[in-house]
Amino acid sequence: MGKVGFIGLGLMGKPMSKNLLKAGFAVTVYSRTRQKIEDMSSIGAKLSSSPKEAAMEAEVVVLMVPDSRDVEEVVLGKNGVIEGIKPGSIVIDMGTISPQVEVRMAEELKKRNVDYLDAPVTGGDVGAAKATLTIMVGGRQDVYEKCLPIFKAMGTNIFHMGPTGSGQKTKIVNQIIVSLNLLATAEGLMFAKSAGLDPGKVIEAISDGAAASYQLTNFGPKMLKHDFEPGFKIAHLQKDLRIALTLADTVKLPMLGTSMVNQLLHTLNQSGNGDKGTPMIVHALEKLAGFEINEKTKVS
Amino acid sequence: MGKVGFIGLGLMGKPMSKNLLKAGFAVTVYSRTRQKIEDMSSIGAKLSSSPKEAAMEAEVVVLMVPDSRDVEEVVLGKNGVIEGIKPGSIVIDMGTISPQVEVRMAEELKKRNVDYLDAPVTGGDVGAAKATLTIMVGGRQDVYEKCLPIFKAMGTNIFHMGPTGSGQKTKIVNQIIVSLNLLATAEGLMFAKSAGLDPGKVIEAISDGAAASYQLTNFGPKMLKHDFEPGFKIAHLQKDLRIALTLADTVKLPMLGTSMVNQLLHTLNQSGNGDKGTPMIVHALEKLAGFEINEKTKVS
Repeated sequence: MGKVGFIGLGLMGKPMSKNLLKAGFAVTVYSRTRQKIEDMSSIGAKLSSSPKEAAMEAEVVVLMVPDSRDVEEVVLGKNGVIEGIKPGSIVIDMGTISPQVEVRMAEELKKRNVDYLDAPVTGGDVGAAKATLTIMVGGRQDVYEKCLPIFKAMGTNIFHMGPTGSGQKTKIVNQIIVSLNLLATAEGLMFAKSAGLDPGKVIEAISDGAAASYQLTNFGPKMLKHDFEPGFKIAHLQKDLRIALTLADTVKLPMLGTSMVNQLLHTLNQSGNGDKGTPMIVHALEKLAGFEINEKTKVS
Repeated sequence: MGKVGFIGLGLMGKPMSKNLLKAGFAVTVYSRTRQKIEDMSSIGAKLSSSPKEAAMEAEVVVLMVPDSRDVEEVVLGKNGVIEGIKPGSIVIDMGTISPQVEVRMAEELKKRNVDYLDAPVTGGDVGAAKATLTIMVGGRQDVYEKCLPIFKAMGTNIFHMGPTGSGQKTKIVNQIIVSLNLLATAEGLMFAKSAGLDPGKVIEAISDGAAASYQLTNFGPKMLKHDFEPGFKIAHLQKDLRIALTLADTVKLPMLGTSMVNQLLHTLNQSGNGDKGTPMIVHALEKLAGFEINEKTKVS
């Protein structure tokens, strides 16, 4: 279990692969962006020029790429993981993608006698840097246990949720709740502003009681300042909700709240704000209301 | 400031008035239910037979009655507070009612040279019993400061939010966020169940991260067990959202999320479940989905 291939060196992948190096794993990295690979050289990573090459020596290959399509390409595409990986190895996908795609990846790799786990994370770039991620894992119990040392190098709360796809499904529940708590925060603060209250003081007054949430405490103040730097991007949350709504449709579950938030995020994506942070959801409500929450006084 | 009249001895009022007694105030109590008044006698409260009588000796009169109409009746009605209260006294309304009604009460009492504060609370019956309520106060700064010893006997987080009505407006923001976080919890857990996950394990996995909320931690498990004992009642949350939506309409603010939750609570109220606890919102989603979250396995 000492040799790890790591594919995807973005906001999350870079600090996660660094933590694997720190924990003593021999890590071979790959990214589509050449510069990102070279940055890792100085801290002891072995470089590679394709997912195939990153997988060749590895006992475990970790994927941290944005979307379902990226996972399919990196695993099954030309010079993909499947061309290089040895039988008996394990692939772990730690990005957030469709549970159905995970099942298909697991099936394809099984044909080469390669095991597969889906293991999406929460905790953001801060949790990735501090190795305090929450990791939600789907796949066989024995494969999960074999990979625990790898997970422990990157996270603190590690849960085995069930068969392949269960990690992704758990992450979807997380994103459903995140997005509605985000709307709760924005709608509550817009009301506070409209009603002539000091919204910052309102956050202070209510954030320890029944209205308490991570979203209110961490993103409420950003909404008030129009601080829309990501953090986690509107476009990525909308991607996750699209996965949620597709799966809900498959199991015939109505999702009143989630579909509404998805539509609001959609309007922001359409107006070119997909790269902004999720607190920008307040801007969709501002458009509807006709005033901005960071104005000195509300004009009404 | 030693003599307090206390009107309303329900789930909240009873423990709150007890805490005033414990803190050394001389408390005269009144309730529409004779038995509730008599229960207070053994622990040192003075009894009264009308709001007027409860107010006659008092320097401060505290109201803890359910709705706007009750406040109007208790203050302005026959044998009401206004008939007994001395000039120079203060009335504090600690229930959750319409901010506009508070403004009118303050105006009526001002004519008798009586000051008024609106000071709704959060923290539930547990916070009331432990004297750890959050208290959100509207009214004049000097009147607020005079009443601080009274607030400190009942709560730990005490905030002066602005002029008369500001306490109620802050409480409304609280209820908007509570109700959407409640929907978030129910919708997320319904998805978990539909997708074949163990919803209890999902709560464990996600409740410390970005999806964290008071509602998820405290009411998620109750939803899974169909434990719908109040706690806080569906009918009372819907009353609060009605106040929220009325005021939002006045200031021309659209409230997409809040109005949806209000409609869902409405269906529960209509089917005779207004006295159940707020986690029962999950039952509205169950009706739509055609299965119950506490079934052994989802039939789909």
